[in-house]
Amino acid sequence: MSKYDKLTTNAAGRTVPQIVNGKEAIPFMGVGKYHPTGRKYAPLIASCIDYPDDGNKVIPTLKEALIRAGLKDGMAISTHHHFRNGDLVAVQIFDIAAELGVKNLTWVPSASFECHSPLIKYLEDGTIHHIEGSMNGALGRFTSEGKMQGLGVLRSHGGRYQAIQDGDVHIDITVIAAPTADPFGNATGDRGAAACGLLGFALADSQYADKVIVVTDNLMPFPCVPWQIQGNYVDYVVAMDIIGIPEKIVSGTTEITKSPDRLLLAEMTAQFCDEAGIVRDGFSFQAGAGGTALSIGVYFAEMCRKRGMKARFARGGSNKYLVKMLEDGLVDYILDGQTFDLEGVRSMRENPGHLNTSPFTSYNFHGKGNFAQFVDVVILGATEVDVNFNANVVTHSDGYLLHGIGGWMNCLMSKCVILPIPLFRDRMPVILDEVTTICGPGELIDVIVTERGIAINPLRPDLIEKLKGSELTIRTIHELKAEAEKICGKPAKPRLTDEVVAVIKWIDGTVIDSVFRVDK
Amino acid sequence: MSKYDKLTTNAAGRTVPQIVNGKEAIPFMGVGKYHPTGRKYAPLIASCIDYPDDGNKVIPTLKEALIRAGLKDGMAISTHHHFRNGDLVAVQIFDIAAELGVKNLTWVPSASFECHSPLIKYLEDGTIHHIEGSMNGALGRFTSEGKMQGLGVLRSHGGRYQAIQDGDVHIDITVIAAPTADPFGNATGDRGAAACGLLGFALADSQYADKVIVVTDNLMPFPCVPWQIQGNYVDYVVAMDIIGIPEKIVSGTTEITKSPDRLLLAEMTAQFCDEAGIVRDGFSFQAGAGGTALSIGVYFAEMCRKRGMKARFARGGSNKYLVKMLEDGLVDYILDGQTFDLEGVRSMRENPGHLNTSPFTSYNFHGKGNFAQFVDVVILGATEVDVNFNANVVTHSDGYLLHGIGGWMNCLMSKCVILPIPLFRDRMPVILDEVTTICGPGELIDVIVTERGIAINPLRPDLIEKLKGSELTIRTIHELKAEAEKICGKPAKPRLTDEVVAVIKWIDGTVIDSVFRVDK
Repeated sequence: MSKYDKLTTNAAGRTVPQIVNGKEAIPFMGVGKYHPTGRKYAPLIASCIDYPDDGNKVIPTLKEALIRAGLKDGMAISTHHHFRNGDLVAVQIFDIAAELGVKNLTWVPSASFECHSPLIKYLEDGTIHHIEGSMNGALGRFTSEGKMQGLGVLRSHGGRYQAIQDGDVHIDITVIAAPTADPFGNATGDRGAAACGLLGFALADSQYADKVIVVTDNLMPFPCVPWQIQGNYVDYVVAMDIIGIPEKIVSGTTEITKSPDRLLLAEMTAQFCDEAGIVRDGFSFQAGAGGTALSIGVYFAEMCRKRGMKARFARGGSNKYLVKMLEDGLVDYILDGQTFDLEGVRSMRENPGHLNTSPFTSYNFHGKGNFAQFVDVVILGATEVDVNFNANVVTHSDGYLLHGIGGWMNCLMSKCVILPIPLFRDRMPVILDEVTTICGPGELIDVIVTERGIAINPLRPDLIEKLKGSELTIRTIHELKAEAEKICGKPAKPRLTDEVVAVIKWIDGTVIDSVFRVDK
Repeated sequence: MSKYDKLTTNAAGRTVPQIVNGKEAIPFMGVGKYHPTGRKYAPLIASCIDYPDDGNKVIPTLKEALIRAGLKDGMAISTHHHFRNGDLVAVQIFDIAAELGVKNLTWVPSASFECHSPLIKYLEDGTIHHIEGSMNGALGRFTSEGKMQGLGVLRSHGGRYQAIQDGDVHIDITVIAAPTADPFGNATGDRGAAACGLLGFALADSQYADKVIVVTDNLMPFPCVPWQIQGNYVDYVVAMDIIGIPEKIVSGTTEITKSPDRLLLAEMTAQFCDEAGIVRDGFSFQAGAGGTALSIGVYFAEMCRKRGMKARFARGGSNKYLVKMLEDGLVDYILDGQTFDLEGVRSMRENPGHLNTSPFTSYNFHGKGNFAQFVDVVILGATEVDVNFNANVVTHSDGYLLHGIGGWMNCLMSKCVILPIPLFRDRMPVILDEVTTICGPGELIDVIVTERGIAINPLRPDLIEKLKGSELTIRTIHELKAEAEKICGKPAKPRLTDEVVAVIKWIDGTVIDSVFRVDK
């Protein structure tokens, strides 16, 4: 079977396959243009008669649980990424599969990290056929060089929920690493040695996978509260000595930037939001975990404090700065999708206003609305932006696939999207004629903040109007690009072949772009 | 269309139809004998493009919401019963339907109360074809007299979740009355003028109905926390002046019994549990809201206090006695399915150990286990018991259908089921040769406690062994029956026709018994 077939040009002008790993794929039709038909994936009906009367689902080893779950060639196995670079479970699953001689698996992580690089050997020996999730770092490099047997499929966090819900991806077995769980399979991320805050990225898997295995290093008597994952969805529970490396799960070192350049970007962004009338009593915002984004949150907090205002909610990735805002009464709620530091974990456990959300509540585009769409402002990053405001977060300008999408795409549905980015990185301009890979259509990206000026998308005359007379430097994106090129020269295009190695799914499940093999 | 067809005799020896309201129904095969095949009901895939960008789903009136939801002839409309006899919403729905001339609706309540008696006129004029839920009081009488156009279908709380999940019942429109909600449709029962604690009985409806309408008299800004009902499932939100009568929602007067007879039953039951070794550190129990059951809880609390023990969890219906146990540290958790008084509502809002459960977590037999099955002891009521320990909770000895099943059937899966019942009521013996209607197969009912002695099911030699030498009077069920008949005489059989007016679904969706028309 060929990795892909039937190339076509989609509504974003990109070349994308219509057959991906043997299955039909719908080309991107434009923002809000694809209307899904059909029904959600319907899991098999279970019965209590097939489960232990006393609710004790504990199985001695992960290997035995995988065997009982019917692990076999061609299955899709999923994991969550709440342990980030401290995950000790995902690789074990494929060690077991390899030991059992199982082949052609699909790995469906909610994200991958450097700690998953050992899986390259299983991609090489055919244990794993391809990855549907994210291919970061070494896995991305491996994919970019055309070495993966199947086609990589990248989705946003919300797109992953959508795909599992809609049956675009069927998961045979999910293994949910849980910092605390009970023998029935109720599980939580907010306590235990491997505490990671919440387990929302495993929600879809628990609801829709055929077999659900919970793995924990902190088995407690029923009931495990809160039951972030509900035991009623769980088939087997496995206790093991250690499932994650705490210091790699939550870094504890996420700090606001000390770089003067980044601080400038943060300050300009915060000022922009203020002048645009976004920072007002009851507003809402989402900023990522990078140093710049953290700093913007701190600026927002200062504004609120000085003016006696408060934000209604902030969407997390939570961190100690957001937690301080909450505990200082400067924001009513943190709607959190993942905790980025130990303060976030503590706060989620302790503060009733620190709420556990999931890709279903926050990001799923195939729901009856989601939280992301009514956030007043989101501040995001990008590897590249083009003169049409299209943005890229997965590939670098050398063409290598190195990052996952995360919630980035989903956040583009908010009321105002701002990308604070340096005008160049390592003397490579960041604003281009055309991005290497489109992850976000330009019509959804409102503002680009660079150290040499701010470009407002011409589709937002309201923002342009509000910033008239500002002391901030407002420029066109073409002006910014020209300035960067004046300094660094016109950037070389990445050397790419025409072989597709991965596809990027838009939030509605359509294919917005392809990633091409690099020509080494 | 005939109400029913293809009568057969099921594994409980009862005559049941295999066609119910035109749809196939599976006769009861015995406890744990029916193995479901197939898949859960698959709802239509929604898309954010069909919902307001700002998340505001507020519609001016319930009528407009019902029209937008496509209300038309033959639809199934569901409601929850958390407002009990204080519900002001359900009747309004059918007033609107009647006004619009819509006919042949099926009403799928999670339970009905006296306040729903006005619906009789809609059953008479064809607005409502039949009820799938419970037919209490006047509605039950109406049904028993053969006046309902279709066949009534009674299910337990868990059976209702199962039926909706499995697609046995498809709900076109659900109307969820919510004490507090936000414009996105997030809703909670734990606060607001109509506070009822939780909204778990509406969970299945929110997940599986085609259209979901939330009706509230306390609309608050996003986010409504906790989101017991998730706005991501909701289509429309309606604000109205008043949705429930607070004093009828939570009586505030649920008190332990003062009747010496009932107190004796309670004391004997508690002593039985103690001698059987059930009351021990870390045990779990569920007792209903009746005066006898409440008293048993108080005895358990006293035992725990005296011996320095505590229960691990108590399943609610919560009430002030359970809350006191929780707040006194005599039980770790209340796993609550509905709050029976204001103290229950307060505690659910305030105590982290007072947990919101649903028929999915607690009772659904078509899940991967449920909480009910690992409760150490449940204390339940019954209208009749027979010499095979079969029990009835829906009809009286005159044959009239007067009660719903509630969670009663689901609780039978616990480790020990005790029915404390008086030997006679109004000089009618309660232990019979054969119950009028089987709701609980005798093999699941372990102990009958009466004021004149305790009968242990011969299927539980372990309990018989443990009670040897007890000061409690242990007798056979035949001895108890004989004693009752010696005093009151042999009871007359109810005068029933052979016309089926309703069916009783077992927790696995099969038909365990029929209710027959009374011969007036």
